[in-house]
Amino acid sequence: MDPNCIFCSILTGDLPSAEVYGDDLAYAFADISPVTPTHVLVIPREHVAAIEDIDQDREPLLGHLLRVAAIVAQQSGISRDGYRLVINQGANAGQMVDHLHLHVLGGAVMGRMG
Amino acid sequence: MDPNCIFCSILTGDLPSAEVYGDDLAYAFADISPVTPTHVLVIPREHVAAIEDIDQDREPLLGHLLRVAAIVAQQSGISRDGYRLVINQGANAGQMVDHLHLHVLGGAVMGRMG
Repeated sequence: MDPNCIFCSILTGDLPSAEVYGDDLAYAFADISPVTPTHVLVIPREHVAAIEDIDQDREPLLGHLLRVAAIVAQQSGISRDGYRLVINQGANAGQMVDHLHLHVLGGAVMGRMG
Repeated sequence: MDPNCIFCSILTGDLPSAEVYGDDLAYAFADISPVTPTHVLVIPREHVAAIEDIDQDREPLLGHLLRVAAIVAQQSGISRDGYRLVINQGANAGQMVDHLHLHVLGGAVMGRMG
């Protein structure tokens, strides 16, 4: 836990969030500034700043986040028409919170990805 | 292997590709229609059509693809300034090849993601 991280504060309940999915390792909640009709964030419960901070031993955690994203897509009804998963890492990608998070985007035809 | 899949044909060598990284589980190569200065695709060596086809037992494979993406970003010199990882799943996201693939995008400031 990082006391200065807003996603850690969401996980502790100190900040509110609209829960979409939760388990022992991951938590998913609605993005407060959605860019598509469905826009959910999937985060690990432990504070991980970047993918590069994860070594080979913890690949299962990364994979779990992706599988949770697919579960969220199915539960949100966007799976059939299609959806986009995005991880923004660093300044060029516009990452705003330094707690690894995966965007689940759906409910519309997507534009270019870069 | 799916004989009708162009990414499987790349993996067998029947179609050419510009290799960026390879190991027992994953292969990475330059996208032939890059949307950013760096645009690499990371794919599993086994034919997986969709994330939803992966069950809990194979989460490590999904996680490995993400970690390979981070390795590719570091090797490509886009890690410091930042990069975006994208998985397009289905029609709304513009998925064009039905073999799970992860886009590694970098070398420019990214636009909107949806």
